[in-house]
Amino acid sequence: MKLIRYRQAGAIKTGVIIDAVKYDTSGFGEDYNEAFFENNGLERLQQYIAGHKNSLQKIGDEVRLDAPVARPSKIICIGLNYADHAKETNATVPAEPVIFMKASTSWQGPDDDIMIPRGSEKTDWEVELAVVIGKKASYVEEAEAMDYAAGYLLLNDVSERAFQIERGGTWDKGKGCDTFSPAGPFLATKDEIADVDNLRLWLKVNGKIMQDGTTANLIFKLPYIISYVSQFMTLLPGDVISTGTPAGVGLGMSPQVYLKPGDVVELGIDGLGSSRQRVVAFNRQ
Amino acid sequence: MKLIRYRQAGAIKTGVIIDAVKYDTSGFGEDYNEAFFENNGLERLQQYIAGHKNSLQKIGDEVRLDAPVARPSKIICIGLNYADHAKETNATVPAEPVIFMKASTSWQGPDDDIMIPRGSEKTDWEVELAVVIGKKASYVEEAEAMDYAAGYLLLNDVSERAFQIERGGTWDKGKGCDTFSPAGPFLATKDEIADVDNLRLWLKVNGKIMQDGTTANLIFKLPYIISYVSQFMTLLPGDVISTGTPAGVGLGMSPQVYLKPGDVVELGIDGLGSSRQRVVAFNRQ
Repeated sequence: MKLIRYRQAGAIKTGVIIDAVKYDTSGFGEDYNEAFFENNGLERLQQYIAGHKNSLQKIGDEVRLDAPVARPSKIICIGLNYADHAKETNATVPAEPVIFMKASTSWQGPDDDIMIPRGSEKTDWEVELAVVIGKKASYVEEAEAMDYAAGYLLLNDVSERAFQIERGGTWDKGKGCDTFSPAGPFLATKDEIADVDNLRLWLKVNGKIMQDGTTANLIFKLPYIISYVSQFMTLLPGDVISTGTPAGVGLGMSPQVYLKPGDVVELGIDGLGSSRQRVVAFNRQ
Repeated sequence: MKLIRYRQAGAIKTGVIIDAVKYDTSGFGEDYNEAFFENNGLERLQQYIAGHKNSLQKIGDEVRLDAPVARPSKIICIGLNYADHAKETNATVPAEPVIFMKASTSWQGPDDDIMIPRGSEKTDWEVELAVVIGKKASYVEEAEAMDYAAGYLLLNDVSERAFQIERGGTWDKGKGCDTFSPAGPFLATKDEIADVDNLRLWLKVNGKIMQDGTTANLIFKLPYIISYVSQFMTLLPGDVISTGTPAGVGLGMSPQVYLKPGDVVELGIDGLGSSRQRVVAFNRQ
């Protein structure tokens, strides 16, 4: 299945994509959140769809998508997980996964604007493959780890490099700003992706290709990552782990290139669709 | 007001403490969570209590407390915020606040056991003053910052030092393990604490005093901290910011001392009560 969430008349509604057509599933009566995944929601949703095949209402293509799953309890990221990206940022290839977290308030729709934070001069992009957790995972073995995954989605791990690296402490200041996690367009359940270790992922800024990689080059693969993270914290249904970004970020260029108001970022992953964000100036208060 | 949450017959119920007596407020019908704080819950709860003064049911002292507020969307911590603690850990006093996050799955009741994670040899303690956010805060000014606080609570920022420091990446691996955030016993609303900048805080292990400090020695004070963090991420109602720990952690001793199964940790802050955790061995699977 391909799950979507969309906005209509001030509310967030749920839907699915079948054969490239969007259908509303509001009648199912549940948001795609922690409780949904925890209570076997994917299977129940599939039964609901089978039972309502002829009565599902189409959604117009003009609807604005929200993130395909509700704000997660945790957004966990793996840093420096492609050798070419570690090299471009002058970082050592890690001996074990680097873990950091993004504030969940950064979670937003795939095509929502990226807002440059106040005082930011180094807002950067990162196309990433993310996995959504399907059931509670604590100390799970690598061999069983994929049983705990609900599916995959496209994520832009937007990052403010000065906040992340030059302001002291951990990376958290530069990773979790509002608008820094455009997610989607859809959650693809595991069965939708034949080989998650062989997906092209790409990102363009103003039409120019900046990142062009493949998940074949991930240093640490998904089963290992899920097992590893679950040694340090319990993963809850609906939590998101983002697996890292390939080379081609602004930080890695010479001279460095960062986003400015008016820029347009487009990104995509084979089988997981594409997203598009306009970059806007700081506009709070 | 002093808000508590407690466990009864498998459910989590809410209550308040009035003149050292615990009363049930289940009839109010709301958990102390994001929606509660967002919808002016403190004021409505106060009215409810005033209107039910003679009919509130006492809760026995034998009840097991849960954390005084529901699992927050974010637990944000300020690192190295007491000069004596920075010195004992050989860290430089930071020029601006160090921010890190604890996985919210570490959130638990004040007297719940601390479980040593699998493979851990360096599980450590940190008594801290934490503030609970009362309303959505983004780019707030220092002068207005306390308007966004609902109140205060006692937190043990349990930390696994090898996971935090020796395993690569950010501190997240060692800060957010399950059971690593015993919180409470209660949430004290702001009016309960006359001077939050002059509170003694202490921690004992097996009856021996290990930490004995005062919030007078905080490098960065609460209004500054709330304002500062809100520049990097939006704080939601019910979110928690923990302000750092004074000297006396196991990492700072020579030789270093860490928790082992059977140890008992007790901690407290003037006006915010005390908590007590038994340390137990890893017992999953």
